[in-house]
Amino acid sequence: MQDQYFKSYEDLEVHRLMLEDEPRTNTYREAICNASNLFKGKVVMDVGAGTGILSLFCAKAGAKKVYAVEASSLAMVLPEIVEANNFSQVIEVIHGKVEEIILDTKVDIIVSEWMGFYLLHESMLESVLYARDKYLVPGGLLFPNRARLYAAPCSLQDLWLKKRSYWTESKYEFDLSPLLLLASQQSAPEIATIPTEGLLSDPQLLWDLDLNTVSQSGLQSFSDRRFFSVESEGPFHGIGLWFTCSFPPAGEGEDPPELSTAPWDEETHWKQTVILLPTEGKLEEGDILGWELNLEKDKDSRAYRIEFNVLDDDEPHGIPCSCGSAKCEIIKHFLNNPNRDSEIPDGNQGGDGDVGEANIAEDNS
Amino acid sequence: MQDQYFKSYEDLEVHRLMLEDEPRTNTYREAICNASNLFKGKVVMDVGAGTGILSLFCAKAGAKKVYAVEASSLAMVLPEIVEANNFSQVIEVIHGKVEEIILDTKVDIIVSEWMGFYLLHESMLESVLYARDKYLVPGGLLFPNRARLYAAPCSLQDLWLKKRSYWTESKYEFDLSPLLLLASQQSAPEIATIPTEGLLSDPQLLWDLDLNTVSQSGLQSFSDRRFFSVESEGPFHGIGLWFTCSFPPAGEGEDPPELSTAPWDEETHWKQTVILLPTEGKLEEGDILGWELNLEKDKDSRAYRIEFNVLDDDEPHGIPCSCGSAKCEIIKHFLNNPNRDSEIPDGNQGGDGDVGEANIAEDNS
Repeated sequence: MQDQYFKSYEDLEVHRLMLEDEPRTNTYREAICNASNLFKGKVVMDVGAGTGILSLFCAKAGAKKVYAVEASSLAMVLPEIVEANNFSQVIEVIHGKVEEIILDTKVDIIVSEWMGFYLLHESMLESVLYARDKYLVPGGLLFPNRARLYAAPCSLQDLWLKKRSYWTESKYEFDLSPLLLLASQQSAPEIATIPTEGLLSDPQLLWDLDLNTVSQSGLQSFSDRRFFSVESEGPFHGIGLWFTCSFPPAGEGEDPPELSTAPWDEETHWKQTVILLPTEGKLEEGDILGWELNLEKDKDSRAYRIEFNVLDDDEPHGIPCSCGSAKCEIIKHFLNNPNRDSEIPDGNQGGDGDVGEANIAEDNS
Repeated sequence: MQDQYFKSYEDLEVHRLMLEDEPRTNTYREAICNASNLFKGKVVMDVGAGTGILSLFCAKAGAKKVYAVEASSLAMVLPEIVEANNFSQVIEVIHGKVEEIILDTKVDIIVSEWMGFYLLHESMLESVLYARDKYLVPGGLLFPNRARLYAAPCSLQDLWLKKRSYWTESKYEFDLSPLLLLASQQSAPEIATIPTEGLLSDPQLLWDLDLNTVSQSGLQSFSDRRFFSVESEGPFHGIGLWFTCSFPPAGEGEDPPELSTAPWDEETHWKQTVILLPTEGKLEEGDILGWELNLEKDKDSRAYRIEFNVLDDDEPHGIPCSCGSAKCEIIKHFLNNPNRDSEIPDGNQGGDGDVGEANIAEDNS
C-alpha cells in the first residue's frame, strides 16, 4: 500500500498537475523566496522533494544546504535537475523515506508540500512530523507551520444530479432506481468545485493545526460536532471541506503567507472536498443545522475513513457553539465575561463537554 | 488483483458513465431489440451483467430466459431492478464469476459488453470465451460476434505538449528538463480523443477477431509489423488505436449492427487510445512509415504490456503489405493473380513471413 503510494508519484503527470497549480506553487515560492532573511546560510530539509521545485526555491533563497529527501525513483533524476540549475553545491538529494534515511545532522528549516485532499487524505504530514521530531533544531521553522480545516453545508445541484438523481430517471425505458439506494450508500468524498453561491452558511473552522506542536498521534482521528446557522435557503446536499496553510512571515509584523483552497479563492488542484448526504435535505434561512463528523485514519494506509451524520433537531449543542442561535450567543457571552456568573443556563444546550470548538483547542495541544 | 477488478465495478460511477455512453448502449439496444426474431423463446446468458441493462434488452426482445451473471456485489441489487421492470419470470441473476458459477443448462445466445480500452485492455473477453466454450450450444450466437482493432499514425499537438514538451520549458524560472527523458520513458497508453485531422494516413486493420472461433490462448499476445503510406504531413507523435464491434444481423441480407469507436464516429467513453513516441517525429506526404507493435497479456491481471517501435527505413515490409508503395502494390497484384507467375520479385520486400497481414489471418484461426 505504501509502496503504491510512492509509486504513484513516479507518474510525472501528478507532478505536472501540481506544478501547474499556480496558487500552490507560487505561494510556496513567495513564502520561501521572499524570506531570504530566514533562509540565508541555513540548513534545510525538503520532505518529499518530488521534482525538486521547493528545494530550488530554498537554494535560491540563500540556504547553505538543502537535503532533498525523495522516496520515489524521481530521486534518480533529481541530481540532474539540481545540476541543470547550478545548485549542486547546495542541494543534496537523498533517496529514501524520511523515516528510513540516515542523516547525522539537524536542520534549521523543514519545507514540505504534504497536503492531501481535505488536508489529511493520503497526506504526508506524519512524515513531516517524524522529520520535525528527529531533525529540526529547537526553534527551527516549518514551511508551512499552520494548517486549518474548514467546513460549510452546501447545495450542489450538478454533483447531486450526477451522483444521486441519475438513477431515479428511467434509462433506455427501463427502471434502474433500485441502484439509487446503492448510490446513496457510496459515501466516498468527492473532489469538486463548490460554487460560492452553493454555501448555505458561513464556514466554520474545524481544525487548527499548529504544526510546531501537533503530535503524530493527534492525527489518528478527528471527531467534531457542529451547529450551523443557515444563511441562504436551498436544497442541502452535503458538507464541503477545504483547508488553508500558512507559512512563517518573512519579517516581524508581516502577514504570514497563506495558501487557501477555499471556494472563493483561485482554484487549486485540491479543489474542495464534498461529503454527500444519502438523501437531499432542505434548509431554510435561520435553520440551525447540526452534524457530527468523524475522521479515522486507516491503519495500513494514508487514507481516512469518514463518517458524517446530520443530527436531530433536539441534539444538544456544544459549549461554546458558533451556530449563531440566540441561546448559544448568550452562553458565549457568559463564557466571555468571567466577571459575571458564568453558570450555564438550563436547557438543551448542556451536556457533553467533549464537543464543539472546545474539542478543537484540545486537538491542538 | 482480480478482486480489485470486480470491486471497481461496484462503483456506480463507472456504470453511470457506461450507460451515458449512448453510442455504446444504443447500439446494444438496437442490435438486441431489433433482433427479436433471434431472441424470441431463446435462453440467453449476459456475462458481466452490471446494472442489468443488456439483460433487460434481451428480455424485451422476447428471450424465454436470461441468466444475468455478475461477479460484483451489484448482483445483490439486480433482482430488484429485474422486478421493477416486471421481468422476474425471465431474468435470473447469478452472483459469481462465470468461471465459477454452476449452471446445468446450455444457452442459445451470449451477450456481453466486455470491451476494454483499445479493445483488449482489462477486457472481459476471456470470460466471454470461457462462457462460450462451456455454455453456448453449437451454432449459438454471440452479441457481439466480431471485433476489429485499427491503427493509424497520429499528430496530437495538445497531448504532446502536455505529456512531453511541458518539461522543456522553464518552470518558475528553473530548468526541470531532465524530467523530459523520464517523461518520454513513460509509455502507458493515453486515453484521448484523436481529431480526424490528426490522422496522418489511412488506418489499417490490425486484428480481426471472429469471436465464434478465437481461442483464449489467441488473446495472450499480439505482434504486428505495419507499413503506412503517409497522406498528410505533420509532426508524428504516436499511433492511435481504436476498435469496432459488430453483432449478428437481425435478418438475412441485413447489415450487422456496428459499434464504432473510430475518431470520426460519435465519441464513446472508450475514446481512442494513443501510444506516444519518446520523441516527436516528422512525416512528409508519401513517406512510408513502418512500425512494430507487441501486446503481451500480463499473467496476473487483465492488463496488457505494450511495446511499440518505429522501424528503420530499410526494414523489409510484410507480404502482402498495405502501405501503398508501388513495390508492395505490385506484390499484392502478383498474389491476387494466381494464374500468373506469383514468384516474388527480388528486393527488400522479402523475408520473414510471420509479419504483416498474414499474421492477422493466423491469429483468427
